[in-house]
Amino acid sequence: MQEVSHEYFMREALKEAQRAFEMDEVPIGAVVVKDGRVIARAHNMREITQDATAHAEVLAIRQACEAVGLWRLIGCSLYVTLEPCPMCAGAIILARLDRVVFGAWDPKAGAAGSVVDLFGVERFNHHPEVVPGVLAEECSSLLKEFFRKKRL
Amino acid sequence: MQEVSHEYFMREALKEAQRAFEMDEVPIGAVVVKDGRVIARAHNMREITQDATAHAEVLAIRQACEAVGLWRLIGCSLYVTLEPCPMCAGAIILARLDRVVFGAWDPKAGAAGSVVDLFGVERFNHHPEVVPGVLAEECSSLLKEFFRKKRL
Repeated sequence: MQEVSHEYFMREALKEAQRAFEMDEVPIGAVVVKDGRVIARAHNMREITQDATAHAEVLAIRQACEAVGLWRLIGCSLYVTLEPCPMCAGAIILARLDRVVFGAWDPKAGAAGSVVDLFGVERFNHHPEVVPGVLAEECSSLLKEFFRKKRL
Repeated sequence: MQEVSHEYFMREALKEAQRAFEMDEVPIGAVVVKDGRVIARAHNMREITQDATAHAEVLAIRQACEAVGLWRLIGCSLYVTLEPCPMCAGAIILARLDRVVFGAWDPKAGAAGSVVDLFGVERFNHHPEVVPGVLAEECSSLLKEFFRKKRL
């Protein structure tokens, strides 16, 4: 049941990634879920905004903070199609998210174990539950297709 | 001469930290400098915005991206009164800032050596020059005064 629910929300994140793809942005999407409901959804917007911080996770977290009216996202889970980078992993810790569920691993910049593991650093004051690899194939395929088309 | 200039811009960051103090925000300030000119200035605004990502560095980076019209802040330096946290260190790497100059060390959450050292991770694709400890005493005193008043 838990697994079904993770896949359901990862599909919502994938819809956001697909929107990014259509806008010629690197296709990464994220949603924030509270009490079984999506309260924020966003995708990477770095190129269109020319804002280095406009990653899907940061945009979704900002939107979720606005939705609940608090900077602490207690009781919330973040679903994202790619392993978070250090900036986004840091934002997840700062926002006190209960859980982060991600799709594909990112061997180049992943901060949930691939390059560094920020969620596992004991000295930080918050440690979300981490669920990796949900719909990893689909999340990864979308990224591969994007970069393949870019090279054509 | 280099040293004088670092102190000059750190004083600008300290002015931002002072503004945060007056707004009852944790007093941390940052400026982004390009060609000897401040192109962005910001301070921590987490409480007033209730946005977990509203740290001085992230706000200054977003403002600087807007000022130059690009997500790559090449040729830019960021001055911040406290050692960046993982989110902000990650944002500095993503924005390709040439240099980060900070004031006080942050033993609880610092990501430039105190808890983790993200700038020193070889596998990341960008490595800014790091200048720690500029006006460290003043930067630290402002924070101490803030928390002392909070406890009264």
